[in-house]
Amino acid sequence: MTSLLLRNVRPYGGANSDLLIRDGRIAGIGRFEADPGMPVEDGKGAIAIPGLIDAHTHLDKTTWGMPWHENNRRAVLRERIDFERDNRIAIGIDPHRQSMRHTIGLAAHGATHIRSHVDIDPVHKLALVDGIMETREKLKGIIDIEIVAFPQSGLMVMPGTLELLDEALSQGCEVLGGIDPCGIDRDPKGQLDALFALALKHQKPIDIHLHEAGDLGAFTMELMFERIRANGMQGKVAISHAFALGMNDYLRVGQLIEQIAELDVAILTTGAPSATVPSIMRLKQAGVRVGAGCDGIRDTWGPWGQPDMLDRARVVGMKNGLRSDIELAHVLHVVSQGGADVMRIEGYGLAEGCNADLTLLTGETLAHAVVDVAPRPLVIKGGRVTARDGQATVEMP
Amino acid sequence: MTSLLLRNVRPYGGANSDLLIRDGRIAGIGRFEADPGMPVEDGKGAIAIPGLIDAHTHLDKTTWGMPWHENNRRAVLRERIDFERDNRIAIGIDPHRQSMRHTIGLAAHGATHIRSHVDIDPVHKLALVDGIMETREKLKGIIDIEIVAFPQSGLMVMPGTLELLDEALSQGCEVLGGIDPCGIDRDPKGQLDALFALALKHQKPIDIHLHEAGDLGAFTMELMFERIRANGMQGKVAISHAFALGMNDYLRVGQLIEQIAELDVAILTTGAPSATVPSIMRLKQAGVRVGAGCDGIRDTWGPWGQPDMLDRARVVGMKNGLRSDIELAHVLHVVSQGGADVMRIEGYGLAEGCNADLTLLTGETLAHAVVDVAPRPLVIKGGRVTARDGQATVEMP
Ligand SMILES: [Zn+2]
Ligand SMILES: [Zn+2]
Repeated sequence: MTSLLLRNVRPYGGANSDLLIRDGRIAGIGRFEADPGMPVEDGKGAIAIPGLIDAHTHLDKTTWGMPWHENNRRAVLRERIDFERDNRIAIGIDPHRQSMRHTIGLAAHGATHIRSHVDIDPVHKLALVDGIMETREKLKGIIDIEIVAFPQSGLMVMPGTLELLDEALSQGCEVLGGIDPCGIDRDPKGQLDALFALALKHQKPIDIHLHEAGDLGAFTMELMFERIRANGMQGKVAISHAFALGMNDYLRVGQLIEQIAELDVAILTTGAPSATVPSIMRLKQAGVRVGAGCDGIRDTWGPWGQPDMLDRARVVGMKNGLRSDIELAHVLHVVSQGGADVMRIEGYGLAEGCNADLTLLTGETLAHAVVDVAPRPLVIKGGRVTARDGQATVEMP
Repeated sequence: MTSLLLRNVRPYGGANSDLLIRDGRIAGIGRFEADPGMPVEDGKGAIAIPGLIDAHTHLDKTTWGMPWHENNRRAVLRERIDFERDNRIAIGIDPHRQSMRHTIGLAAHGATHIRSHVDIDPVHKLALVDGIMETREKLKGIIDIEIVAFPQSGLMVMPGTLELLDEALSQGCEVLGGIDPCGIDRDPKGQLDALFALALKHQKPIDIHLHEAGDLGAFTMELMFERIRANGMQGKVAISHAFALGMNDYLRVGQLIEQIAELDVAILTTGAPSATVPSIMRLKQAGVRVGAGCDGIRDTWGPWGQPDMLDRARVVGMKNGLRSDIELAHVLHVVSQGGADVMRIEGYGLAEGCNADLTLLTGETLAHAVVDVAPRPLVIKGGRVTARDGQATVEMP
C-alpha cells in the first residue's frame, strides 16, 4: 500500500490542511512533514472529498470511444432490451474493452467505487460478467467494482435466466439484480419470489431496477416490502430509479417512504431528467440511504451520459430543483458518502483511519464545484494517484 | 465587413465543403480558392451550423466571474425578486461589467445572437438597460443583442413601472416583457391590458415570462389569446417558459397549442429541469416557432447555468426525453434556427446569401455534438473569427 503527503487541500471545502497518507489510509489531517522518501503532492488549495461513487451504472453497455452509434429506433423499453441483446456483439460492444473505457473514464473524473449491473440472459449467459470481471481484475487498485447479476431481458419471460443468476452469484457477483416485475416480466409475484429465494440462498443483497411509475411502481414496492419483512431482509434491498416515488400524490409517497425507512431499503437515483424521480431531500429527511449513478452512458438505449459522477450530481441537483449551497452540498454527499452507505463500503470517508480514496475538486465551495463540473485536479485511490487534471494515469484501450 | 475562406467543414454534419465568405455574407458553399489577400481558416472537418442563439437570458443578473455568491435563502419567487432588486448593487452586480462577461461567455461558446430581458423597476429605473446597451455597443460585430424591457418586480404591484417601460421602448428596447400576470402581479386583466396597449403604441412585440403552471397558466394564456385576436397581434407575441404546456392533461394542452399555432405565438423554453415544460416535439408537429435560452446563469436566484447554448441544448434534450439522432438534431435546430424564427432575424442560416454567422462543432453527427458539449473550435460573426477552441477573441473584463 502506498504512502503520500497531500499538502494544501480543503477537506469538504473547510480549512486548509495537509492529508498524511500511510499504507493506503489517512493517517492524519493537519500539518505534516513528509516521511523520508515519501512522495508529496500539492493540492493547491482545492476542495477534497472522499472518492465519488457511481452506485448505478452498466459497464457492459457503452459505445464510448467507438464510432458514433446512430439510433433512430423506437423508444419502447422492451424493443430496446431485445435490440441490444441481439445486436451488441455485431455492433462491437466488447464487454471487457468497453467496460475498461467506461471505468477509466469514471476514475479520471474522481470515482473510486462502482456498482455495475451486468446483463445476464440465455444468449450471452455469463460472458458479459466475465468481461467485467476481467476489467475489475486489471483495474484493481484504481477503482473498486461491485457487480450486480442483472436479468436485463427479464426473469420469468426468459427461461434459463434464473439458473444463470444462481451461477453468477456463485462465481462472485456481489448483488442480485431484478427488473420491473410487472412492466418487463409480466409476473410480479413470480419474479419477486424467485429473486428473494435466490438472494436468501446466497445470502446476498438485492438491487432491483424499478422504472414502474405511479401506482404500478407503488404496488411492486409493496410486494417487495412484504417479502423483506417475511424474509428478514431489512437493510439488504436497494431500489434503483424508484420512479413511483416521484408521483404527485404526496401522502401516498409518504406512506411508501415510511416503509422504505422502516425496512432500511436503499434508493438509487439517476435524476432521470424526463421521468418522475424521488426527492433526495425528502428521502434525507426520512433517514433513507440514497446513492446515485450515471446509469448507462452512450449505449444502444440512448446517447446521453458522461462517465462523470460530478456531471451526474449536476443532473440530479437540477432535476430536484435544488439551489441553495446547503442543498448542493447534499447532492455531493449523495454521489459520494451516499453511495458508500448503499454499498456498505468499509473505511470510506475523509477522516483519520479511513481509506485514502479521494478526489480533489476546484471551486470556492462545494456548491460551486457541483455547478462548475470542472476537471478534477487529482484523484487518489489507496494513496496512489489515479488521475490528474481529468486524465487517468492508466491508459484507455 | 469581412471576407474569409473557411475550408473543410461539414454544414449541418453533411458533406465536406468550403464556405466562401465575402463582405460578411456566405458567398458560396462548395470548393473555392481564396481571393488574393483573403484570410483562410481550416475547419478540420468539423460540423458547421449557423450561430447559436440564446433567445431567453438575463444579461443584467449574473455573478459570473465574481466571488461565489452563497445562497441559503428561501426559494419563494417573490422573495427572490425582492432580494435581487434590493441587493444587486451592494453585491456588486454591475450591469455593464457583468453583461460583458455573460455575453462574451456566450460568444465563446458559439452564440451570435441574444435576446435578453433586462429588469426595469422604480428602484433602478433604466440603469440596468443602460448598462446592457453599453455592452451591446461595445460588442457590436461580435454578437447581436436584442433587449426586452422587463418588469421583473411586477407591473401593477409596482407603480411607476409602466411609465419606465414606455420610456425604455422609446429609447431602443426592441421587445416589451411581462411576468406572471396572476402569480406575480395578482391582476391578470390589469397587466395584460396595460402591456398590449403599450406594445400597440410602440408597434413592438411582446415576450412574457409565464411560470404559471397547470390551469392557472392556461387561463393566462387564454387571456393573452383574446388580446392577440382583438388587437391583431398575430405573430407578435412570445411566451417564455410556458410551464402550463407541460401539464399532464393531453387534450387541454392540445387546445392551447392549437391556438398558439393559429395565432403564431412563439414559445421559448429553457428545458427547466425541475418544472413541467412544453414538449418541443409536439410544438414542432403543430408548426409552432420554438427557441431556447439559458435564462439566468449563476445569479442571486440560483447557481445553475453556463453561458453556453450547446449545454442548454443538452438540458432541453434530456428534459424532453429525446434520444434519437433525428430528435437531437431538432434540439440543435431549436437553439439556432428556432431562436432566429422567434426573433425574426433577417439573413440567418447556412446558405448562399445568408449572414456569415456560424459556429463549428466537433463530433461525428449533430446528435454527437449535442451530447458531447465539447468546446467550439471556431465561431464566426459577419465573417470575422470571434472565438477559437472555446475562447473568445475579445477579452473578458
Ligand atoms: Zn440501470
Ligand atoms: Zn427569464
